[in-house]
Amino acid sequence: MNRQTIETWFKKLQDDICTQIESTDQKGAFEQDLWQRPQGGGGRTRILRNGNIIEKGGVNFSAVEGPTPQKILDALQLDQADFYATGVSIVMHPRSPRVPIIHMNVRYFEMSNGVSWFGGGIDLTPHYVVDEDAHYFHQQLKTTCDQHDPSYYPQFKQWADDYFYIKHRKETRGIGGIFFDRLTETPEISLADRWAFVQDVGSLFAPTYCHLLDKNKDLPFGENEKLWQYLRRGRYVEFNLVLDKGTKFGLDTDGRTESILMSMPPQANWEYNYEVQPGSEEEKTLRLLQKGVNWI
Amino acid sequence: MNRQTIETWFKKLQDDICTQIESTDQKGAFEQDLWQRPQGGGGRTRILRNGNIIEKGGVNFSAVEGPTPQKILDALQLDQADFYATGVSIVMHPRSPRVPIIHMNVRYFEMSNGVSWFGGGIDLTPHYVVDEDAHYFHQQLKTTCDQHDPSYYPQFKQWADDYFYIKHRKETRGIGGIFFDRLTETPEISLADRWAFVQDVGSLFAPTYCHLLDKNKDLPFGENEKLWQYLRRGRYVEFNLVLDKGTKFGLDTDGRTESILMSMPPQANWEYNYEVQPGSEEEKTLRLLQKGVNWI
Repeated sequence: MNRQTIETWFKKLQDDICTQIESTDQKGAFEQDLWQRPQGGGGRTRILRNGNIIEKGGVNFSAVEGPTPQKILDALQLDQADFYATGVSIVMHPRSPRVPIIHMNVRYFEMSNGVSWFGGGIDLTPHYVVDEDAHYFHQQLKTTCDQHDPSYYPQFKQWADDYFYIKHRKETRGIGGIFFDRLTETPEISLADRWAFVQDVGSLFAPTYCHLLDKNKDLPFGENEKLWQYLRRGRYVEFNLVLDKGTKFGLDTDGRTESILMSMPPQANWEYNYEVQPGSEEEKTLRLLQKGVNWI
Repeated sequence: MNRQTIETWFKKLQDDICTQIESTDQKGAFEQDLWQRPQGGGGRTRILRNGNIIEKGGVNFSAVEGPTPQKILDALQLDQADFYATGVSIVMHPRSPRVPIIHMNVRYFEMSNGVSWFGGGIDLTPHYVVDEDAHYFHQQLKTTCDQHDPSYYPQFKQWADDYFYIKHRKETRGIGGIFFDRLTETPEISLADRWAFVQDVGSLFAPTYCHLLDKNKDLPFGENEKLWQYLRRGRYVEFNLVLDKGTKFGLDTDGRTESILMSMPPQANWEYNYEVQPGSEEEKTLRLLQKGVNWI
Protein backbone atom coordinates (compact mmCIF):
# COMPACT_ATOMS: atom_id res chain seq x y z
CA MET A 1 0.00 0.00 0.00
CA ASN A 2 1.46 3.29 -1.15
CA ARG A 3 0.35 6.54 -2.79
CA GLN A 4 0.12 4.87 -6.17
CA THR A 5 -2.03 1.95 -5.06
CA ILE A 6 -4.32 4.24 -3.07
CA GLU A 7 -4.69 6.65 -5.98
CA THR A 8 -5.39 3.83 -8.41
CA TRP A 9 -7.99 2.33 -6.11
CA PHE A 10 -9.71 5.71 -5.59
CA LYS A 11 -9.91 6.26 -9.35
CA LYS A 12 -11.47 2.84 -9.78
CA LEU A 13 -13.92 3.67 -6.97
CA GLN A 14 -14.90 6.85 -8.80
CA ASP A 15 -15.46 4.84 -11.99
CA ASP A 16 -17.54 2.20 -10.22
CA ILE A 17 -19.71 4.69 -8.36
CA CYS A 18 -20.42 6.70 -11.52
CA THR A 19 -21.41 3.51 -13.35
CA GLN A 20 -23.76 2.39 -10.58
CA ILE A 21 -25.39 5.82 -10.22
CA GLU A 22 -25.90 6.10 -13.99
CA SER A 23 -27.35 2.62 -14.12
CA THR A 24 -29.83 3.42 -11.34
CA ASP A 25 -30.72 6.85 -12.70
CA GLN A 26 -31.30 5.45 -16.21
CA LYS A 27 -30.97 8.86 -17.85
CA GLY A 28 -28.23 11.06 -16.40
CA ALA A 29 -24.63 10.70 -17.58
CA PHE A 30 -21.54 12.07 -15.86
CA GLU A 31 -19.48 14.62 -17.74
CA GLN A 32 -15.82 14.84 -16.86
CA ASP A 33 -13.51 17.82 -16.42
CA LEU A 34 -9.82 17.12 -15.95
CA TRP A 35 -7.91 19.82 -14.11
CA GLN A 36 -4.36 20.48 -13.04
CA ARG A 37 -3.26 22.26 -9.90
CA PRO A 38 -0.48 24.78 -10.69
CA GLN A 39 1.40 23.84 -7.51
CA GLY A 40 1.16 20.09 -8.20
CA GLY A 41 -1.38 17.36 -8.96
CA GLY A 42 -4.93 17.67 -10.22
CA GLY A 43 -8.23 15.87 -10.49
CA ARG A 44 -11.13 14.39 -12.38
CA THR A 45 -14.39 16.22 -11.65
CA ARG A 46 -17.48 14.34 -12.80
CA ILE A 47 -20.88 16.02 -12.77
CA LEU A 48 -24.27 14.57 -13.60
CA ARG A 49 -27.08 17.03 -14.37
CA ASN A 50 -30.76 16.61 -15.11
CA GLY A 51 -30.99 12.88 -14.57
CA ASN A 52 -34.22 11.04 -13.92
CA ILE A 53 -33.58 10.83 -10.18
CA ILE A 54 -30.49 12.98 -9.65
CA GLU A 55 -30.95 16.66 -10.43
CA LYS A 56 -27.30 17.55 -9.81
CA GLY A 57 -24.50 15.41 -8.44
CA GLY A 58 -20.73 15.30 -8.40
CA VAL A 59 -18.29 12.42 -7.96
CA ASN A 60 -14.83 13.93 -7.75
CA PHE A 61 -11.41 12.39 -7.61
CA SER A 62 -8.28 14.41 -6.86
CA ALA A 63 -4.63 13.83 -6.00
CA VAL A 64 -2.72 16.97 -5.12
CA GLU A 65 0.72 17.63 -3.71
CA GLY A 66 3.30 20.33 -3.12
CA PRO A 67 4.36 22.74 -0.41
CA THR A 68 1.83 22.64 2.42
CA PRO A 69 -0.40 25.75 2.46
CA GLN A 70 0.35 28.04 5.39
CA LYS A 71 -3.08 27.56 6.97
CA ILE A 72 -2.50 23.81 7.29
CA LEU A 73 1.02 24.28 8.59
CA ASP A 74 -0.42 26.54 11.28
CA ALA A 75 -3.12 24.00 12.16
CA LEU A 76 -0.58 21.18 12.38
CA GLN A 77 1.96 23.42 14.12
CA LEU A 78 4.63 22.69 11.55
CA ASP A 79 7.22 25.06 10.13
CA GLN A 80 7.47 23.71 6.63
CA ALA A 81 6.62 20.47 4.89
CA ASP A 82 5.33 19.07 1.62
CA PHE A 83 1.97 17.34 1.56
CA TYR A 84 0.17 14.83 -0.60
CA ALA A 85 -3.60 14.31 -0.50
CA THR A 86 -5.86 12.09 -2.55
CA GLY A 87 -9.54 11.26 -2.23
CA VAL A 88 -13.00 10.85 -3.64
CA SER A 89 -15.79 13.32 -2.73
CA ILE A 90 -19.46 12.99 -3.56
CA VAL A 91 -22.60 15.07 -3.12
CA MET A 92 -25.92 14.13 -4.76
CA HIS A 93 -28.97 16.39 -4.94
CA PRO A 94 -31.99 14.41 -6.09
CA ARG A 95 -34.93 15.89 -7.96
CA SER A 96 -37.60 14.53 -5.60
CA PRO A 97 -37.98 15.76 -2.01
CA ARG A 98 -38.77 12.11 -1.18
CA VAL A 99 -35.21 11.08 -2.06
CA PRO A 100 -32.39 11.99 0.35
CA ILE A 101 -29.31 14.10 -0.36
CA ILE A 102 -26.10 12.16 0.30
CA HIS A 103 -22.46 13.05 0.88
CA MET A 104 -19.45 10.75 0.93
CA ASN A 105 -15.75 11.38 1.21
CA VAL A 106 -12.74 9.10 1.55
CA ARG A 107 -9.26 10.60 1.68
CA TYR A 108 -5.62 9.89 2.34
CA PHE A 109 -3.17 12.53 3.56
CA GLU A 110 0.62 12.31 3.81
CA MET A 111 3.14 14.82 5.15
CA SER A 112 6.80 14.90 4.22
CA ASN A 113 7.65 14.50 7.92
CA GLY A 114 6.42 10.90 7.59
CA VAL A 115 2.99 11.22 9.20
CA SER A 116 0.07 9.91 7.18
CA TRP A 117 -3.59 9.22 7.82
CA PHE A 118 -7.00 8.41 6.40
CA GLY A 119 -10.24 10.28 6.81
CA GLY A 120 -13.75 10.19 5.45
CA GLY A 121 -17.37 9.40 6.09
CA ILE A 122 -20.85 9.07 4.66
CA ASP A 123 -23.86 11.04 5.85
CA LEU A 124 -27.46 11.23 4.69
CA THR A 125 -29.70 14.31 4.52
CA PRO A 126 -33.31 13.31 3.91
CA HIS A 127 -35.68 16.19 3.20
CA TYR A 128 -38.20 14.02 5.07
CA VAL A 129 -36.86 11.57 7.62
CA VAL A 130 -38.20 8.04 6.99
CA ASP A 131 -37.55 5.74 9.96
CA GLU A 132 -37.11 2.62 7.81
CA ASP A 133 -34.54 4.32 5.57
CA ALA A 134 -32.67 5.84 8.50
CA HIS A 135 -32.49 2.42 10.16
CA TYR A 136 -31.31 0.77 6.93
CA PHE A 137 -28.66 3.45 6.30
CA HIS A 138 -27.18 3.31 9.78
CA GLN A 139 -27.33 -0.50 9.87
CA GLN A 140 -25.32 -0.64 6.64
CA LEU A 141 -22.69 1.64 8.15
CA LYS A 142 -22.62 -0.27 11.43
CA THR A 143 -22.20 -3.63 9.71
CA THR A 144 -19.22 -2.34 7.72
CA CYS A 145 -17.68 -0.66 10.76
CA ASP A 146 -18.16 -3.75 12.96
CA GLN A 147 -16.22 -5.87 10.48
CA HIS A 148 -13.18 -3.78 11.37
CA ASP A 149 -13.53 -2.64 14.96
CA PRO A 150 -16.53 -2.68 17.32
CA SER A 151 -15.59 0.79 18.55
CA TYR A 152 -15.75 2.33 15.06
CA TYR A 153 -19.50 2.72 14.60
CA PRO A 154 -20.36 4.29 17.98
CA GLN A 155 -17.30 6.53 17.83
CA PHE A 156 -17.66 7.64 14.19
CA LYS A 157 -21.46 7.99 14.48
CA GLN A 158 -21.01 10.47 17.30
CA TRP A 159 -18.26 12.24 15.37
CA ALA A 160 -20.75 12.69 12.50
CA ASP A 161 -23.43 14.00 14.90
CA ASP A 162 -20.95 16.56 16.21
CA TYR A 163 -19.48 17.48 12.83
CA PHE A 164 -22.69 17.85 10.80
CA TYR A 165 -24.29 20.15 13.37
CA ILE A 166 -25.59 23.54 12.26
CA LYS A 167 -24.91 25.43 15.45
CA HIS A 168 -26.72 28.63 14.48
CA ARG A 169 -29.86 26.60 13.67
CA LYS A 170 -29.56 24.14 16.56
CA GLU A 171 -30.18 21.37 14.02
CA THR A 172 -28.14 18.53 12.58
CA ARG A 173 -27.74 18.69 8.78
CA GLY A 174 -29.54 15.37 8.38
CA ILE A 175 -29.54 12.00 10.10
CA GLY A 176 -25.75 11.86 10.23
CA GLY A 177 -23.86 8.68 9.50
CA ILE A 178 -20.16 8.20 10.17
CA PHE A 179 -17.30 10.68 10.11
CA PHE A 180 -13.63 10.06 10.92
CA ASP A 181 -10.34 11.89 10.43
CA ARG A 182 -6.65 11.51 11.23
CA LEU A 183 -6.83 7.71 11.38
CA THR A 184 -3.09 7.10 11.71
CA GLU A 185 -1.47 3.80 12.55
CA THR A 186 -1.46 2.90 16.24
CA PRO A 187 0.20 0.07 18.20
CA GLU A 188 -3.04 -1.91 17.73
CA ILE A 189 -4.11 -0.88 14.23
CA SER A 190 -1.82 -0.80 11.20
CA LEU A 191 -2.19 1.71 8.38
CA ALA A 192 -3.08 -1.25 6.15
CA ASP A 193 -6.03 -2.00 8.46
CA ARG A 194 -7.13 1.63 8.23
CA TRP A 195 -6.91 1.42 4.46
CA ALA A 196 -8.99 -1.76 4.35
CA PHE A 197 -11.66 0.02 6.40
CA VAL A 198 -11.66 3.10 4.16
CA GLN A 199 -11.97 0.88 1.08
CA ASP A 200 -15.01 -0.85 2.60
CA VAL A 201 -16.62 2.54 3.37
CA GLY A 202 -16.01 3.64 -0.22
CA SER A 203 -17.43 0.42 -1.63
CA LEU A 204 -20.50 0.65 0.59
CA PHE A 205 -21.60 3.97 -0.86
CA ALA A 206 -23.10 3.05 -4.22
CA PRO A 207 -25.20 0.00 -3.24
CA THR A 208 -26.51 1.80 -0.15
CA TYR A 209 -27.50 4.99 -1.95
CA CYS A 210 -28.81 3.19 -5.04
CA HIS A 211 -31.11 1.15 -2.79
CA LEU A 212 -32.52 4.40 -1.35
CA LEU A 213 -32.89 5.86 -4.84
CA ASP A 214 -34.78 2.82 -6.13
CA LYS A 215 -36.99 2.64 -3.06
CA ASN A 216 -38.10 6.30 -3.06
CA LYS A 217 -37.80 7.62 -6.60
CA ASP A 218 -41.46 7.11 -7.58
CA LEU A 219 -43.09 8.42 -4.41
CA PRO A 220 -45.54 11.28 -5.04
CA PHE A 221 -45.01 14.83 -3.85
CA GLY A 222 -46.52 18.26 -4.40
CA GLU A 223 -45.62 21.93 -4.26
CA ASN A 224 -45.53 22.00 -0.48
CA GLU A 225 -42.87 19.24 -0.46
CA LYS A 226 -40.85 21.03 -3.16
CA LEU A 227 -40.77 24.25 -1.12
CA TRP A 228 -39.62 22.29 1.94
CA GLN A 229 -36.90 20.66 -0.18
CA TYR A 230 -35.65 24.09 -1.30
CA LEU A 231 -35.58 25.32 2.31
CA ARG A 232 -33.69 22.21 3.47
CA ARG A 233 -31.24 22.77 0.63
CA GLY A 234 -30.78 26.28 2.04
CA ARG A 235 -29.64 24.66 5.29
CA TYR A 236 -27.28 22.44 3.29
CA VAL A 237 -25.76 25.59 1.77
CA GLU A 238 -25.43 27.16 5.21
CA PHE A 239 -23.61 24.12 6.56
CA ASN A 240 -21.26 23.82 3.60
CA LEU A 241 -20.34 27.50 3.34
CA VAL A 242 -20.27 28.43 7.03
CA LEU A 243 -19.09 25.26 8.75
CA ASP A 244 -17.68 22.56 6.47
CA LYS A 245 -13.95 22.24 7.00
CA GLY A 246 -13.34 20.58 3.63
CA THR A 247 -15.00 23.46 1.78
CA LYS A 248 -13.14 26.03 3.87
CA PHE A 249 -9.84 24.23 3.32
CA GLY A 250 -10.44 24.05 -0.42
CA LEU A 251 -11.38 27.72 -0.79
CA ASP A 252 -8.60 28.90 1.55
CA THR A 253 -5.94 26.99 -0.35
CA ASP A 254 -6.98 28.15 -3.83
CA GLY A 255 -8.53 24.81 -4.79
CA ARG A 256 -10.61 24.55 -7.96
CA THR A 257 -13.73 26.48 -6.95
CA GLU A 258 -16.13 24.75 -9.35
CA SER A 259 -15.05 21.32 -8.07
CA ILE A 260 -15.36 22.37 -4.42
CA LEU A 261 -18.73 24.05 -4.87
CA MET A 262 -20.24 21.18 -6.88
CA SER A 263 -21.80 20.46 -3.44
CA MET A 264 -24.14 23.46 -3.87
CA PRO A 265 -27.72 22.49 -4.77
CA PRO A 266 -29.14 23.54 -8.15
CA GLN A 267 -31.68 25.72 -6.31
CA ALA A 268 -32.07 26.73 -2.67
CA ASN A 269 -34.61 29.01 -0.99
CA TRP A 270 -34.73 31.06 2.19
CA GLU A 271 -37.92 32.23 3.87
CA TYR A 272 -37.71 34.57 6.83
CA ASN A 273 -38.77 32.84 10.03
CA TYR A 274 -40.38 29.86 8.30
CA GLU A 275 -42.42 27.84 10.76
CA VAL A 276 -43.53 24.25 10.26
CA GLN A 277 -47.17 23.31 10.87
CA PRO A 278 -47.78 21.47 14.14
CA GLY A 279 -48.35 17.77 13.45
CA SER A 280 -46.94 18.00 9.91
CA GLU A 281 -44.35 15.72 8.29
CA GLU A 282 -42.01 18.72 8.26
CA GLU A 283 -42.36 19.13 12.00
CA LYS A 284 -41.63 15.44 12.55
CA THR A 285 -38.46 15.72 10.46
CA LEU A 286 -37.31 18.83 12.28
CA ARG A 287 -37.82 17.13 15.65
CA LEU A 288 -35.51 14.31 14.53
CA LEU A 289 -32.68 16.56 13.34
CA GLN A 290 -30.86 16.36 16.65
CA LYS A 291 -27.68 14.78 17.93
CA GLY A 292 -27.68 11.45 19.70
CA VAL A 293 -30.62 9.73 18.00
CA ASN A 294 -30.13 5.94 17.97
CA TRP A 295 -31.31 5.05 14.45
CA ILE A 296 -30.68 1.34 14.91
CA MET B 1 -23.99 62.79 21.38
CA ASN B 2 -24.22 59.67 23.48
CA ARG B 3 -25.57 56.11 23.26
CA GLN B 4 -29.11 57.30 23.73
CA THR B 5 -29.05 59.98 21.04
CA ILE B 6 -27.37 57.61 18.59
CA GLU B 7 -29.87 54.84 19.30
CA THR B 8 -32.81 57.20 18.96
CA TRP B 9 -31.50 58.54 15.68
CA PHE B 10 -30.91 55.02 14.28
CA LYS B 11 -34.47 54.01 15.18
CA LYS B 12 -35.81 57.06 13.40
CA LEU B 13 -33.61 56.20 10.41
CA GLN B 14 -35.11 52.71 10.33
CA ASP B 15 -38.61 54.21 10.42
CA ASP B 16 -37.85 56.70 7.65
CA ILE B 17 -36.23 54.12 5.37
CA CYS B 18 -39.13 51.69 5.78
CA THR B 19 -41.61 54.45 4.95
CA GLN B 20 -39.73 55.50 1.84
CA ILE B 21 -39.26 51.92 0.58
CA GLU B 22 -42.96 51.13 1.14
CA SER B 23 -43.98 54.30 -0.61
CA THR B 24 -41.83 53.47 -3.64
CA ASP B 25 -42.83 49.80 -3.72
CA GLN B 26 -46.54 50.68 -3.50
CA LYS B 27 -47.50 47.19 -2.32
CA GLY B 28 -45.09 45.60 0.17
CA ALA B 29 -45.35 46.38 3.89
CA PHE B 30 -42.71 45.74 6.53
CA GLU B 31 -43.61 43.32 9.30
CA GLN B 32 -41.84 43.78 12.60
CA ASP B 33 -40.36 41.26 15.03
CA LEU B 34 -39.10 42.57 18.35
CA TRP B 35 -36.45 40.42 19.99
CA GLN B 36 -34.43 40.44 23.19
CA ARG B 37 -30.88 39.26 23.60
CA PRO B 38 -30.54 37.12 26.78
CA GLN B 39 -27.16 38.71 27.60
CA GLY B 40 -28.50 42.28 27.11
CA GLY B 41 -30.25 44.45 24.56
CA GLY B 42 -32.32 43.46 21.56
CA GLY B 43 -33.67 44.68 18.27
CA ARG B 44 -36.42 45.45 15.81
CA THR B 45 -36.27 43.24 12.72
CA ARG B 46 -38.44 44.48 9.85
CA ILE B 47 -39.01 42.31 6.81
CA LEU B 48 -40.86 43.11 3.60
CA ARG B 49 -41.95 40.19 1.43
CA ASN B 50 -43.63 39.92 -1.95
CA GLY B 51 -43.75 43.60 -2.75
CA ASN B 52 -44.22 45.00 -6.24
CA ILE B 53 -40.52 45.74 -6.65
CA ILE B 54 -38.91 44.18 -3.59
CA GLU B 55 -39.21 40.39 -3.37
CA LYS B 56 -37.55 40.17 0.05
CA GLY B 57 -35.88 42.84 2.11
CA GLY B 58 -34.90 43.55 5.67
CA VAL B 59 -34.32 46.81 7.55
CA ASN B 60 -33.01 45.89 10.97
CA PHE B 61 -32.24 47.95 14.03
CA SER B 62 -30.44 46.55 17.04
CA ALA B 63 -28.78 47.79 20.23
CA VAL B 64 -26.98 45.11 22.21
CA GLU B 65 -24.68 45.17 25.20
CA GLY B 66 -23.04 42.98 27.80
CA PRO B 67 -19.80 41.12 28.38
CA THR B 68 -17.75 41.16 25.18
CA PRO B 69 -17.81 37.77 23.41
CA GLN B 70 -14.46 35.99 23.60
CA LYS B 71 -13.89 36.11 19.83
CA ILE B 72 -14.02 39.92 19.87
CA LEU B 73 -11.82 40.17 22.95
CA ASP B 74 -9.26 38.05 21.08
CA ALA B 75 -9.50 40.22 17.98
CA LEU B 76 -9.10 43.41 20.01
CA GLN B 77 -6.45 41.83 22.24
CA LEU B 78 -8.35 42.65 25.38
CA ASP B 79 -8.67 40.56 28.52
CA GLN B 80 -12.15 41.50 29.56
CA ALA B 81 -14.53 44.33 28.82
CA ASP B 82 -18.19 45.11 28.31
CA PHE B 83 -19.36 46.26 24.92
CA TYR B 84 -22.25 48.19 23.48
CA ALA B 85 -23.19 48.12 19.79
CA THR B 86 -26.07 49.70 17.91
CA GLY B 87 -26.82 49.98 14.23
CA VAL B 88 -29.10 49.67 11.24
CA SER B 89 -28.55 46.91 8.64
CA ILE B 90 -30.31 46.58 5.32
CA VAL B 91 -30.37 44.11 2.44
CA MET B 92 -32.92 44.31 -0.40
CA HIS B 93 -33.50 41.60 -3.00
CA PRO B 94 -35.68 42.95 -5.80
CA ARG B 95 -37.96 40.82 -7.94
CA SER B 96 -36.60 42.02 -11.28
CA PRO B 97 -33.07 41.19 -12.48
CA ARG B 98 -33.05 44.73 -13.90
CA VAL B 99 -33.13 46.19 -10.37
CA PRO B 100 -29.97 46.02 -8.23
CA ILE B 101 -29.56 44.35 -4.84
CA ILE B 102 -28.42 46.83 -2.18
CA HIS B 103 -26.82 46.59 1.23
CA MET B 104 -26.37 49.31 3.84
CA ASN B 105 -25.07 49.31 7.38
CA VAL B 106 -24.34 52.05 9.89
CA ARG B 107 -23.11 51.15 13.35
CA TYR B 108 -21.65 52.49 16.57
CA PHE B 109 -19.49 50.42 18.89
CA GLU B 110 -18.32 51.26 22.41
CA MET B 111 -16.02 49.36 24.75
CA SER B 112 -15.98 49.74 28.53
CA ASN B 113 -12.30 50.70 28.29
CA GLY B 114 -13.48 53.98 26.76
CA VAL B 115 -12.74 53.33 23.10
CA SER B 116 -15.61 53.91 20.69
CA TRP B 117 -16.01 54.09 16.94
CA PHE B 118 -18.36 54.19 13.97
CA GLY B 119 -18.49 51.88 10.98
CA GLY B 120 -20.69 51.26 8.00
CA GLY B 121 -21.11 51.54 4.28
CA ILE B 122 -23.40 51.16 1.30
CA ASP B 123 -22.72 48.89 -1.66
CA LEU B 124 -24.70 48.03 -4.77
CA THR B 125 -24.96 44.65 -6.50
CA PRO B 126 -26.62 45.00 -9.90
CA HIS B 127 -27.44 41.71 -11.64
CA TYR B 128 -26.64 43.66 -14.80
CA VAL B 129 -24.23 46.59 -14.51
CA VAL B 130 -25.70 49.76 -16.03
CA ASP B 131 -23.06 52.46 -16.49
CA GLU B 132 -25.46 55.34 -15.86
CA ASP B 133 -26.70 53.82 -12.60
CA ALA B 134 -23.20 52.95 -11.42
CA HIS B 135 -22.10 56.52 -12.09
CA TYR B 136 -25.14 57.94 -10.31
CA PHE B 137 -24.66 55.68 -7.28
CA HIS B 138 -20.98 56.45 -6.83
CA GLN B 139 -21.52 60.15 -7.46
CA GLN B 140 -24.12 60.24 -4.67
CA LEU B 141 -21.66 58.58 -2.29
CA LYS B 142 -18.81 60.84 -3.35
CA THR B 143 -20.85 64.01 -2.89
CA THR B 144 -21.81 62.98 0.64
CA CYS B 145 -18.25 61.93 1.50
CA ASP B 146 -16.76 65.12 0.07
CA GLN B 147 -18.95 67.24 2.33
CA HIS B 148 -17.02 65.76 5.25
CA ASP B 149 -13.50 64.99 4.09
CA PRO B 150 -12.00 64.83 0.60
CA SER B 151 -10.06 61.72 1.58
CA TYR B 152 -13.22 59.78 2.55
CA TYR B 153 -14.53 58.76 -0.86
CA PRO B 154 -11.28 57.46 -2.41
CA GLN B 155 -10.33 55.72 0.83
CA PHE B 156 -13.71 54.17 1.59
CA LYS B 157 -14.34 53.27 -2.06
CA GLN B 158 -11.15 51.23 -2.12
CA TRP B 159 -12.04 49.71 1.24
CA ALA B 160 -15.35 48.53 -0.29
CA ASP B 161 -13.53 47.11 -3.34
CA ASP B 162 -11.26 45.13 -1.04
CA TYR B 163 -13.97 44.08 1.39
CA PHE B 164 -16.66 42.99 -1.09
CA TYR B 165 -14.27 40.78 -3.03
CA ILE B 166 -15.14 37.12 -3.58
CA LYS B 167 -11.62 35.75 -3.57
CA HIS B 168 -12.53 32.21 -4.65
CA ARG B 169 -14.41 33.64 -7.68
CA LYS B 170 -11.93 36.43 -8.45
CA GLU B 171 -14.96 38.74 -8.68
CA THR B 172 -16.24 41.68 -6.69
CA ARG B 173 -19.75 41.14 -5.27
CA GLY B 174 -21.09 44.08 -7.26
CA ILE B 175 -19.93 47.59 -8.14
CA GLY B 176 -18.89 48.31 -4.55
CA GLY B 177 -19.61 51.63 -2.92
CA ILE B 178 -18.10 52.77 0.36
CA PHE B 179 -17.05 50.77 3.42
CA PHE B 180 -15.47 52.05 6.62
CA ASP B 181 -14.81 50.73 10.11
CA ARG B 182 -13.19 51.77 13.37
CA LEU B 183 -13.65 55.49 12.71
CA THR B 184 -12.49 56.70 16.11
CA GLU B 185 -11.79 60.29 17.05
CA THR B 186 -8.40 61.61 15.96
CA PRO B 187 -6.55 64.89 16.66
CA GLU B 188 -8.11 66.25 13.44
CA ILE B 189 -11.56 64.65 13.51
CA SER B 190 -13.87 64.58 16.51
CA LEU B 191 -16.27 61.74 17.22
CA ALA B 192 -19.09 64.24 16.62
CA ASP B 193 -17.73 64.80 13.10
CA ARG B 194 -17.68 61.02 12.54
CA TRP B 195 -21.25 60.84 13.74
CA ALA B 196 -22.37 63.61 11.41
CA PHE B 197 -20.80 61.69 8.51
CA VAL B 198 -22.48 58.40 9.49
CA GLN B 199 -25.84 60.19 9.75
CA ASP B 200 -25.42 61.57 6.24
CA VAL B 201 -24.57 58.11 4.90
CA GLY B 202 -27.69 56.68 6.58
CA SER B 203 -29.89 59.45 5.23
CA LEU B 204 -28.49 59.02 1.72
CA PHE B 205 -29.63 55.42 1.46
CA ALA B 206 -33.36 55.71 0.81
CA PRO B 207 -33.43 58.48 -1.81
CA THR B 208 -30.54 56.88 -3.69
CA TYR B 209 -32.02 53.38 -3.76
CA CYS B 210 -35.57 54.57 -4.40
CA HIS B 211 -34.31 56.49 -7.45
CA LEU B 212 -32.79 53.26 -8.80
CA LEU B 213 -36.01 51.35 -8.03
CA ASP B 214 -38.17 53.89 -9.86
CA LYS B 215 -35.84 54.07 -12.82
CA ASN B 216 -35.55 50.32 -13.43
CA LYS B 217 -38.67 48.65 -12.05
CA ASP B 218 -40.59 48.48 -15.34
CA LEU B 219 -37.78 47.30 -17.61
CA PRO B 220 -38.58 44.05 -19.42
CA PHE B 221 -36.75 40.78 -18.80
CA GLY B 222 -37.13 37.12 -19.70
CA GLU B 223 -36.20 33.68 -18.42
CA ASN B 224 -32.58 34.08 -19.35
CA GLU B 225 -32.31 37.19 -17.16
CA LYS B 226 -34.10 35.43 -14.27
CA LEU B 227 -31.63 32.53 -14.38
CA TRP B 228 -28.73 34.99 -14.35
CA GLN B 229 -30.30 36.76 -11.36
CA TYR B 230 -30.54 33.45 -9.46
CA LEU B 231 -26.89 32.68 -10.23
CA ARG B 232 -25.79 36.15 -9.10
CA ARG B 233 -27.79 35.66 -5.92
CA GLY B 234 -25.79 32.45 -5.45
CA ARG B 235 -22.65 34.58 -5.44
CA TYR B 236 -24.31 36.89 -2.90
CA VAL B 237 -24.91 33.86 -0.66
CA GLU B 238 -21.29 32.78 -1.10
CA PHE B 239 -20.00 36.19 -0.07
CA ASN B 240 -22.28 36.51 2.93
CA LEU B 241 -21.75 33.00 4.31
CA VAL B 242 -18.06 32.54 3.49
CA LEU B 243 -16.60 36.03 3.79
CA ASP B 244 -18.83 38.62 5.42
CA LYS B 245 -17.44 39.58 8.82
CA GLY B 246 -20.76 40.89 10.12
CA THR B 247 -22.50 37.60 9.38
CA LYS B 248 -19.66 35.61 10.89
CA PHE B 249 -19.63 37.82 13.98
CA GLY B 250 -23.38 37.45 14.41
CA LEU B 251 -23.41 33.67 14.04
CA ASP B 252 -20.29 33.22 16.18
CA THR B 253 -21.73 35.28 19.02
CA ASP B 254 -25.15 33.57 19.11
CA GLY B 255 -26.94 36.48 17.51
CA ARG B 256 -30.55 36.07 16.33
CA THR B 257 -30.07 33.81 13.29
CA GLU B 258 -33.22 34.86 11.45
CA SER B 259 -32.26 38.54 11.73
CA ILE B 260 -28.70 37.90 10.57
CA LEU B 261 -29.71 35.68 7.66
CA MET B 262 -32.43 38.02 6.43
CA SER B 263 -29.67 38.89 3.93
CA MET B 264 -30.19 35.54 2.16
CA PRO B 265 -32.11 35.83 -1.13
CA PRO B 266 -35.55 34.20 -1.45
CA GLN B 267 -34.10 31.88 -4.12
CA ALA B 268 -30.56 31.24 -5.37
CA ASN B 269 -29.25 28.82 -7.97
CA TRP B 270 -25.92 27.17 -8.72
CA GLU B 271 -24.94 25.73 -12.08
CA TYR B 272 -21.71 23.81 -12.42
CA ASN B 273 -19.17 25.73 -14.50
CA TYR B 274 -21.69 28.19 -15.92
CA GLU B 275 -20.16 30.15 -18.76
CA VAL B 276 -21.46 33.44 -20.08
CA GLN B 277 -21.94 33.86 -23.84
CA PRO B 278 -19.27 35.96 -25.53
CA GLY B 279 -20.62 39.41 -26.32
CA SER B 280 -23.62 39.00 -23.97
CA GLU B 281 -24.84 41.44 -21.34
CA GLU B 282 -23.84 38.86 -18.74
CA GLU B 283 -20.28 38.83 -20.04
CA LYS B 284 -20.13 42.63 -19.93
CA THR B 285 -21.29 42.60 -16.30
CA LEU B 286 -18.78 39.93 -15.33
CA ARG B 287 -15.96 41.93 -16.93
CA LEU B 288 -16.88 44.90 -14.76
CA LEU B 289 -16.96 43.00 -11.44
CA GLN B 290 -13.37 43.85 -10.65
CA LYS B 291 -11.59 46.04 -8.13
CA GLY B 292 -10.40 49.50 -8.99
CA VAL B 293 -13.01 50.56 -11.56
CA ASN B 294 -13.50 54.33 -11.54
CA TRP B 295 -17.28 54.62 -11.83
CA ILE B 296 -17.26 58.40 -11.79
